[in-house]
Amino acid sequence: MGNADVIVVGAGIAGLTAAREVTGAGRSVQVLEARHRVGGRTTGDTLGTGAVVEMGGQWVGPQQTEVLALLDELGLATFPTYDEGHHLTIRDGTITRYRDQTFGMPEASLPEIARVGEELESLAASVPLSAPWLTPDALALDRQTFAAWLAATTDDPEAARFFHLLTEALFSAEPWELALLHVLFYVRSNGSLDNLAATTGGNQEARVVGGSHRISERLAEQLPPGSLQLDAAVSVVRQRDGGVTVTYDRGEVSAARVIVALPPTLAGRLRYDPPMPAPRDGLTQQLPMGCVIKIQAGYPTPFWREAGLSGQVLSCDDLLGFTFDNSPPDGSSGVLTGFFEGAHARQAAELTADRRRELVVDSLVRFFGDAAAEPIEYVELDWMAEEHTRGCYGGRLGAGAWTAYGEALAAPVGRIHWAGAETAEVSNGYMDGAVRSGRRAAAEVLAANA
Amino acid sequence: MGNADVIVVGAGIAGLTAAREVTGAGRSVQVLEARHRVGGRTTGDTLGTGAVVEMGGQWVGPQQTEVLALLDELGLATFPTYDEGHHLTIRDGTITRYRDQTFGMPEASLPEIARVGEELESLAASVPLSAPWLTPDALALDRQTFAAWLAATTDDPEAARFFHLLTEALFSAEPWELALLHVLFYVRSNGSLDNLAATTGGNQEARVVGGSHRISERLAEQLPPGSLQLDAAVSVVRQRDGGVTVTYDRGEVSAARVIVALPPTLAGRLRYDPPMPAPRDGLTQQLPMGCVIKIQAGYPTPFWREAGLSGQVLSCDDLLGFTFDNSPPDGSSGVLTGFFEGAHARQAAELTADRRRELVVDSLVRFFGDAAAEPIEYVELDWMAEEHTRGCYGGRLGAGAWTAYGEALAAPVGRIHWAGAETAEVSNGYMDGAVRSGRRAAAEVLAANA
Repeated sequence: MGNADVIVVGAGIAGLTAAREVTGAGRSVQVLEARHRVGGRTTGDTLGTGAVVEMGGQWVGPQQTEVLALLDELGLATFPTYDEGHHLTIRDGTITRYRDQTFGMPEASLPEIARVGEELESLAASVPLSAPWLTPDALALDRQTFAAWLAATTDDPEAARFFHLLTEALFSAEPWELALLHVLFYVRSNGSLDNLAATTGGNQEARVVGGSHRISERLAEQLPPGSLQLDAAVSVVRQRDGGVTVTYDRGEVSAARVIVALPPTLAGRLRYDPPMPAPRDGLTQQLPMGCVIKIQAGYPTPFWREAGLSGQVLSCDDLLGFTFDNSPPDGSSGVLTGFFEGAHARQAAELTADRRRELVVDSLVRFFGDAAAEPIEYVELDWMAEEHTRGCYGGRLGAGAWTAYGEALAAPVGRIHWAGAETAEVSNGYMDGAVRSGRRAAAEVLAANA
Repeated sequence: MGNADVIVVGAGIAGLTAAREVTGAGRSVQVLEARHRVGGRTTGDTLGTGAVVEMGGQWVGPQQTEVLALLDELGLATFPTYDEGHHLTIRDGTITRYRDQTFGMPEASLPEIARVGEELESLAASVPLSAPWLTPDALALDRQTFAAWLAATTDDPEAARFFHLLTEALFSAEPWELALLHVLFYVRSNGSLDNLAATTGGNQEARVVGGSHRISERLAEQLPPGSLQLDAAVSVVRQRDGGVTVTYDRGEVSAARVIVALPPTLAGRLRYDPPMPAPRDGLTQQLPMGCVIKIQAGYPTPFWREAGLSGQVLSCDDLLGFTFDNSPPDGSSGVLTGFFEGAHARQAAELTADRRRELVVDSLVRFFGDAAAEPIEYVELDWMAEEHTRGCYGGRLGAGAWTAYGEALAAPVGRIHWAGAETAEVSNGYMDGAVRSGRRAAAEVLAANA
């Protein structure tokens, strides 16, 4: 194989953004991607109705300025997530319709939910994004789980339930799987809890016309010919004699530097020669991915809209915990997307595909009525089973890990640089974070005069 | 490469015991070992005085019947760990000498320490070793950290400190890094807290003449010629057409079945084709190894014995938290072994080797007097930096992981079977557990008529 100035491992948004920056600065790049497609945790599908659906990450919000600017550069448009009508919250068999900031939680618990949220925000404000381990009282904040903090912070079972649900929605993980410090970092990194949770005005505000996977496809199309190899799973990264050599399925490629743009847990599975320093290796031993199965159910029309419903559901009762209206921009057909998350995703994964579909349809009928009973199309993606992702939305740090290993998350190791949404200071976990991380890693490489 | 009936990945005690069982049943085996030596987490060194020292796992106890029987079969003798004289506990600058069950903790806290221990033992008694996830109230026990349980269980800071210290000693990890359920399982798996902690009568009772690495060396010597390849790091395990093919550094080998006898986190770094089912993959994402640096300081004589000291120290004040007399059986020279564990190991790893040695010597002088100031030899092994182990003593499960992923720990995946101390029901984490796991995996393979 030929040589390049820089090798990028992983053709998701982070890796391809890094490659774009590197080639934009006049350097050559070789991007190696394990899959037969680009996009990483973004990938699309087209339903029989012609509706494009996003099977992975899909939304962008107004604070996510880097991905918005990139969309502009790439000539990709956005359109608003459908956010009209009433949302639903399902709790103990009761369906609550709402159109405000209450999330359909009981009136009596709203002040407590607000108080807990404010306490979280106030703690989050103290996290330095470039070094969460330097947060005042970092050890104490890190060595407790978010679940333990919640239990100590509120006696209101409805408030506890709300933050449990929110944790699943935001992290695809359970409150005991996350350090409090990780939650605080994530809230700060993404502006606020409101920003994380909101549709209009927040991180779920808009979708990409043609699907979010178009970002990576466009980025790939614009790379110089021959810069990208698909079906090229990397196995070994060697640093030697002032350069790096990367071994992949069909050969080797050499460069001055490499950007590994994989989720940290997968980056930890590569073989490095010389081996990774212990703190970096230890980090990758304890940054597991979230658990999610995403589904899309297609209907002839977005019939729930006529009933005054937004399609947005939070359910405490169902394995399918969250849904959104995911219809095409013109509403020419109806699509509901939904998520099994955290423990629910693990449970749902044990079912047969038929039984899981039944379960989804049962839930959708409960949420939206009998018209939901016969989707004309149903697709799903179990991200835990994806060999080259192994979970979504992203990696998380459990109790104690940020203060013990956090410094190794983005710090280059010799000629190896790290990108990916987990390594982003701002918009961590999101496409915007992926873009930022790719730019940061490319800047490191270019500054080092690769 | 030639074929064999069974492939074993990893020539530690678990893998080599499995290989012995397989060849004992008349089947052929091919053992692939990444290192240039056998033994895995057991390895020896010889000091200038001729004293053999164990740089990894070293002790066996009276309840560890499988490893004791194997030692007999292999013609290896044991000798008692030096356990005479007074032990020392260092706390807030005070040195307490003791020769009883008090661990040198303050008199006033002993009843509370006993009460907390009894509570732990009583909870541990409810853990079914073959399925910890079926423990009564498993979810609640699993979803809290051991640290959180300790904080909720005792207000006595000395009792809390004692169990913190004990956690580091037993797990090379911190109380917030472990689920309560993991601690309970471990206590039950190893008989009792007393058994875990005790020297005479417990898991530290005896040593192997010639060093514990002799177990693996003998096992390897007794394999049929050509059954073992060193320097053979495995990268890919393929299941296809009723067999398995394993790719390693210099080629491929095929067999009916494979036993992967690596710590789970390292097993998770191999590439599997077809890919691992999600629960198994998820497990290996969250079973990080403990952190430990083990040191040996050699002296002309075991001078502390004359001062009436056993050489056994627990220190709350030092990074070097634990020491033992590790002199040769005849006491012809003196050796002290010591451990940096958990957070202390990570801290100590950041120092230069010289500074770390100074720190060790300072601690040993504080413990044993000026005679400790000039060791004639000093060796250390940072297990975190070992590419083919990545931490010791073993893997642990954090909050929520046993109930979410535990079933995948030892369950075969098609023709792939799992061995290693982490997969043992009895003596989990110890050499005895490694032997048991190797026998169990071999029995699975033989029962499947490999």
